[in-house]
Amino acid sequence: MQTSELQWTAQEQSIAKAAFAKAYQREIQALVQLVRQQASTIAGTDDIWHLHDFLSARRHELDGKYDDRESALLFVLADLVKENWLSFADLEGLDALKLSKITALTRMM
Amino acid sequence: MQTSELQWTAQEQSIAKAAFAKAYQREIQALVQLVRQQASTIAGTDDIWHLHDFLSARRHELDGKYDDRESALLFVLADLVKENWLSFADLEGLDALKLSKITALTRMM
Repeated sequence: MQTSELQWTAQEQSIAKAAFAKAYQREIQALVQLVRQQASTIAGTDDIWHLHDFLSARRHELDGKYDDRESALLFVLADLVKENWLSFADLEGLDALKLSKITALTRMM
Repeated sequence: MQTSELQWTAQEQSIAKAAFAKAYQREIQALVQLVRQQASTIAGTDDIWHLHDFLSARRHELDGKYDDRESALLFVLADLVKENWLSFADLEGLDALKLSKITALTRMM
């Protein structure tokens, strides 16, 4: 799928940036709930290092995931839609071609 | 302080090993309580990565701390006594010289 030649207007960049921030906050909030839940049940050595491993993995994943380079935007947005961190309502204002490419990508992932 | 020429009998090694295990379990239990407490108050991004940083630092520290080489035993035991993870009751059975060296080390640390 050709995505690299798409032009992003300043307004669209701003929409994407806001969508990233929303999705990130939602992921973090879900993570907060999960960590609180996990932490309330930890009892010993294995549990505590398991929690640490889990946080290390999630941090590494999140650090790499929110790639805001223009060439990556459609893929990241599609990923976030696919995972239900974003809805198409959050992407309102992007042009029809980008939205259709995001839709197609969510089906391919 | 000369500690390297001290001989550890099999029984003393066994006492030291048991003391290490006790201290480690006590440290972990205290850490469990602290993490539960911290986790119950986390609310967002900064808190969650702060918890991760805290666990990384504690894990690194604990991994390095429990050095069970004979040449390190007195220092580690003194450290654990100093930090109240062990009492001298946990070291009962070590010879008087070792106990006095541990006492001296706790005062020097």
